[in-house]
Amino acid sequence: MDDLLAGITVPTLLLDEAKCRANFERMADRAKRHGLQFRPHAKTHQSRAVARWSRDYGVEKLTVSSLRMAAYFADDGWTDITVAFPTNIREADRIRHLASRVALNLLVESVETVEALDAMLSSPVGIFIKADTGYGRTGLKPGHWDRIDPIVERIRAADRLHFRGFLCHAGHSYAARSPAEIEEVHDQTLKAMAALGHRYSVDTPDLTLSIGDTPSCSVAEHFEGVHEMRPGNFAFYDLDQLQIGACSADDIAIALACPVVALHPDRLEAVLYGGGVHLSTERQQQADGTIQYGMLGVWEETGWSLPAGAPYLRKISQEHGVVRFFDEATYKAVRLGELVPVLPVHSCMTADAMGAYLTLEGESVAMMGGYPGL
Amino acid sequence: MDDLLAGITVPTLLLDEAKCRANFERMADRAKRHGLQFRPHAKTHQSRAVARWSRDYGVEKLTVSSLRMAAYFADDGWTDITVAFPTNIREADRIRHLASRVALNLLVESVETVEALDAMLSSPVGIFIKADTGYGRTGLKPGHWDRIDPIVERIRAADRLHFRGFLCHAGHSYAARSPAEIEEVHDQTLKAMAALGHRYSVDTPDLTLSIGDTPSCSVAEHFEGVHEMRPGNFAFYDLDQLQIGACSADDIAIALACPVVALHPDRLEAVLYGGGVHLSTERQQQADGTIQYGMLGVWEETGWSLPAGAPYLRKISQEHGVVRFFDEATYKAVRLGELVPVLPVHSCMTADAMGAYLTLEGESVAMMGGYPGL
Repeated sequence: MDDLLAGITVPTLLLDEAKCRANFERMADRAKRHGLQFRPHAKTHQSRAVARWSRDYGVEKLTVSSLRMAAYFADDGWTDITVAFPTNIREADRIRHLASRVALNLLVESVETVEALDAMLSSPVGIFIKADTGYGRTGLKPGHWDRIDPIVERIRAADRLHFRGFLCHAGHSYAARSPAEIEEVHDQTLKAMAALGHRYSVDTPDLTLSIGDTPSCSVAEHFEGVHEMRPGNFAFYDLDQLQIGACSADDIAIALACPVVALHPDRLEAVLYGGGVHLSTERQQQADGTIQYGMLGVWEETGWSLPAGAPYLRKISQEHGVVRFFDEATYKAVRLGELVPVLPVHSCMTADAMGAYLTLEGESVAMMGGYPGL
Repeated sequence: MDDLLAGITVPTLLLDEAKCRANFERMADRAKRHGLQFRPHAKTHQSRAVARWSRDYGVEKLTVSSLRMAAYFADDGWTDITVAFPTNIREADRIRHLASRVALNLLVESVETVEALDAMLSSPVGIFIKADTGYGRTGLKPGHWDRIDPIVERIRAADRLHFRGFLCHAGHSYAARSPAEIEEVHDQTLKAMAALGHRYSVDTPDLTLSIGDTPSCSVAEHFEGVHEMRPGNFAFYDLDQLQIGACSADDIAIALACPVVALHPDRLEAVLYGGGVHLSTERQQQADGTIQYGMLGVWEETGWSLPAGAPYLRKISQEHGVVRFFDEATYKAVRLGELVPVLPVHSCMTADAMGAYLTLEGESVAMMGGYPGL
C-alpha cells in the first residue's frame, strides 16, 4: 500500500477489486441457488469497468436508474437493460433511440405514462409496473386493483408494449437492524408480490416478479414466487449495510483516502481533507443516538480493515471532516499530512460524488461522469 | 420561461443571473459601507463565469476551498487568492506552482505545517492562522497563546512566509434563526478577533482579520476591528439561509428544474426526477420538527418564486424526490411530465452535485468539474 498511498495527494476513492468481485460472486451464487435471474443495479458503481467484472460471474443483464445510464452501458455492449425508475416521458428521443438498439424494460405506474409510451415508440419495449410493497416511496399497492387493472389492460392493448411484470424496491429494509428484521420486511415483500402474481399470471404466464433491495437479497433464504433480483449497493456495501446486518466490515469495497490537515490534541480530534463533496453528507444514527458521517479504517498490507469501535466523523462540511477519537493511543498514531481510509455511510452517494476510483493496483477506473443534468 | 422549459428533459440546475448579480452588488455595497475588503468565496458557484460577473461589482480577490480550485481561477486571470482550508502539505507541487504565479494566501494552524511550507517554497506566500471563534470545527482559540505564539514566531522566522493575520469562519451562525441571533454570534466573533488583533498587531501593524460566514456578512451592522469579509453562499443563498434569516426567498438564485414522474392522489404526493445525486441529501429541520430536502417553487414569467407554505420534499433517494402537498388544489395543479422548480436546502452542495448551470436566458454556465479526487 505504501507505494500507492505515496502517490495520492488529495481525497481519492479507493476500490478494492478483490472485495468487489467477491461481492458479485457471492450474490451471483445466491441468485443461482434460489433459481433467480440476476440483474444487478449499476447505479452504485456507475462504471463500465466494474460492470465488465460482473460478467465473470455470469451477469448478462443490468438494471440502471436513468435513461442516460442505460445509454452509457448500452454503448459498452450491454443488450438487456431495465430502467428501474418511473419513466420520464420528457425523454422521448432517448427512449426511442434505446428501444431501437437494446432489449429495454421501462417502469410505469399510470395509464397516462403507458399512453405516452404507446404514442412515442416505434420499437418494442418491455413494461414493468412499479409495485409498492410497503416502502411508501412510489408505485402502486397490491390490492389497489382499481388502479392497477387499467394499467395492465392499457399495456396489453398497446402494440409495442410487452407487459413483463412487477418490480418493487423494499427500501424499508434499510430500517432493519438485524437479519431477522430484514427477513420480516422480505416476507411482507414476498406476500405482496405473490398477490400480484396470483392475479395477473393467469393472462401473462411468463410474468416476472422482480425484487431489488440489497439487505433482502444479501440475507434472505426464501424467494418463493419471485423471479429476479436487482441489488445494487452490494457491489461495494457500506456502513449502512453493516448496521442493517446485510454485510460484514470486510465486504466493504470502497474507502476514501483522506489527508490529515489539522490535529486537536485538546479534544482528541483530527480534521481531514474529505467532506460532503467527497463522501456526500449521508449520515448514520448510531445505537447511542449520535450521528456519524464515515468511519476511520486502518491500512493493511493490502487495502484496509475496520476495527471494532473505530473513530468516526462527527461533523462534515463542504471539504472538512472532523474525526473524533476515543482514546489517546489511537489519536496519537495519526500524523499531520498522512492519509487515513474513511469508510462511507452510503457508498452509492460517495461514488457519485467522487466520479472515479483508484484500484489498489493503482489503476484509474472511470465512471459515467459528466453532468447529471446535461 | 416556456421556451426554456420546453427544451429541458432531465433535472437541470437553473441560475437566475439577475438575482445572483443583485446578491453580489448588495454584498459589495455592504463591504464598502463598512470599510471591509471583499474577497468572496468561490466554493459555492465554482464557476469562472460567475466569478467574472462579480468583477462588475469591484471584486478583485477570491477565496477558494482547495488548491485545485485556486489553480482553476488563477488560469482565468485571478491574481490574488486565499485558500481558506488548512494547508494540505501533500500538495507541495501545486503549492509551489501557484505561489510562483499569483499572490497566494494559505491557512495554517500548526508549527509543523509552517515548517513544511518553509521547507518546500521558493516563492513568497501570505500566511493566515485559522482562528476558532466558537464554531469548534478547526482552528485555534484566541487566548490559547501557548499554541498560537509559537506559530506566529515560526512564520515570522521564515524567509518566504509573510504573516498576514487571522481568518475565521463562524459557522455556528448557521444555528441562528433570526437576525438577532446572528448578531449574537457575530459579536462573539468580533470580540475574539479583537483579542487576536490586540496581541499581534503590535509587531504586525498591517495585520488582516478576516471573517467569513454568510449570515453575519448579510445581516450584521457592525464590523469594528475586522478588515475583510469572505462570504460564499450569498451568491446563490438557499433555504438554509432563508431559515436563518440571512436572505429573503426572492434572493435565492438557483433552482433545480425537475420532471414530475409519478402522482399519488391518495396521499397528495408527487414523485420527482430529482434526488440526492442532484440536490445532495442536505436536509433541513423545520420549525415543527419535520425534515425537508427542498421546496417547490412556482414558475413566473421570468424565473420562479417561492410562495409561503410551499410543498416540500419529505423524502429523497438517489434519483427520487417525494413532494408532499398540503391541499388538493395545489396538488391538482401539477401534471405528469411537467417540470417543477425545487429550491435547494444548501446551494453549495446542490451546485457541486450538478456540476453546471443553465441561465434563464438559456446559456450553459460551466463549473470547475472533473473529479474532486483527481
